[in-house]
Amino acid sequence: MDQVRTIEIRQSVYANNDERARLLRGELRAQGIFLLNLMSSPGSGKTTTLTRTIEALKDELKIAVMEADIDSDVDAKTIAQTGVHAVQLHTGGMCHLDADMTRQGLDSLEEQNIDLAILENVGNLVCPAEFDTGASKNAMILSVPEGHDKPLKYPLIFQVCDVVLINKIDTMPVFDFDMEECRKNILMRNPNAKIIPISAKTGEGIQEWADWLREQVRLWKM
Amino acid sequence: MDQVRTIEIRQSVYANNDERARLLRGELRAQGIFLLNLMSSPGSGKTTTLTRTIEALKDELKIAVMEADIDSDVDAKTIAQTGVHAVQLHTGGMCHLDADMTRQGLDSLEEQNIDLAILENVGNLVCPAEFDTGASKNAMILSVPEGHDKPLKYPLIFQVCDVVLINKIDTMPVFDFDMEECRKNILMRNPNAKIIPISAKTGEGIQEWADWLREQVRLWKM
Repeated sequence: MDQVRTIEIRQSVYANNDERARLLRGELRAQGIFLLNLMSSPGSGKTTTLTRTIEALKDELKIAVMEADIDSDVDAKTIAQTGVHAVQLHTGGMCHLDADMTRQGLDSLEEQNIDLAILENVGNLVCPAEFDTGASKNAMILSVPEGHDKPLKYPLIFQVCDVVLINKIDTMPVFDFDMEECRKNILMRNPNAKIIPISAKTGEGIQEWADWLREQVRLWKM
Repeated sequence: MDQVRTIEIRQSVYANNDERARLLRGELRAQGIFLLNLMSSPGSGKTTTLTRTIEALKDELKIAVMEADIDSDVDAKTIAQTGVHAVQLHTGGMCHLDADMTRQGLDSLEEQNIDLAILENVGNLVCPAEFDTGASKNAMILSVPEGHDKPLKYPLIFQVCDVVLINKIDTMPVFDFDMEECRKNILMRNPNAKIIPISAKTGEGIQEWADWLREQVRLWKM
């Protein structure tokens, strides 16, 4: 179960990423595949959150995961242990995925009838936000140790995300993290953002997040 | 003291960044200005570490700081409160600084006879590592909450850094962080890396870091 396939992603040759992303999103909609693009800084807990998310939803939804990384396959191995189909995408040094690179990842999935495909993007708050991957929804994780001021410094990623998970809330006692200030900063960038505080470690908030995601998948398939 | 100048950095027109960086480094050497390029993920504690570093060295060295950010000037204001000269560099959405952008920053400094110029690069473990800024030395901060596996996932930044500060060691009790594993992972990427565990919050390890930096500045000026 801990043997995962690694796909070396080629750099895109397409200039018009927005158009490519729109096309991909349309095809996924027609096929009933919900694609979640999950972004965050390195070390914010994407893989642990994903493991919890899979545990909460895998009995109801057929899930596949694409782990994008510059190098290594540690995350894909961790995800494969949950029992869902996982592939490792190597970006060859690229700091983000665009729609065509995402399509290469989707094409490499060997499962059929997927309800929910999750792209764990490269850990980076800057570049991934600039490229529409064709995802149905964009999600990001901001973790408590990173600080509540991040929406001030990295505006775009907060603008493009439909949902912001605030992770590692179990560590709030040891950090000067102001949750209300954080909410205010996020909403200043994106008044429509759904904000869900979680702890992937303790499981707190995971139910609310899973409920939100399940509902999005249901709406996508309608 | 909390009014800081903001410089809008233009994108470089030079194709050969390595050559431009080499030129800049030579000029700085001739002028006796040591340029430190400080890189890390968002939220790893660059600004707090910088504040501590300035406190430790400002009586011996004339220091100036360039705060690169996509947006906001919160960091430059914090640094200006330490009493050293600080400018805010806005990268206009760019995820890194190259040598020419760094030169624009240096040209904007109004101080004379600077011993130590510090560039706080954009918070990002991927792109800044790809561009030589012309710095005398590269430093990075990896913080405990990010995890000891980061050298496996972001190889290049560990390869190009002369020193790795492992910050937030005061939070080790609440994270599954293995310091020995972390050292091993860093040295696998870069056997020459100097590794210094610190807590910018409590001050632990700052003396060792300040001693290392002081010695590098001394050697640069010889």
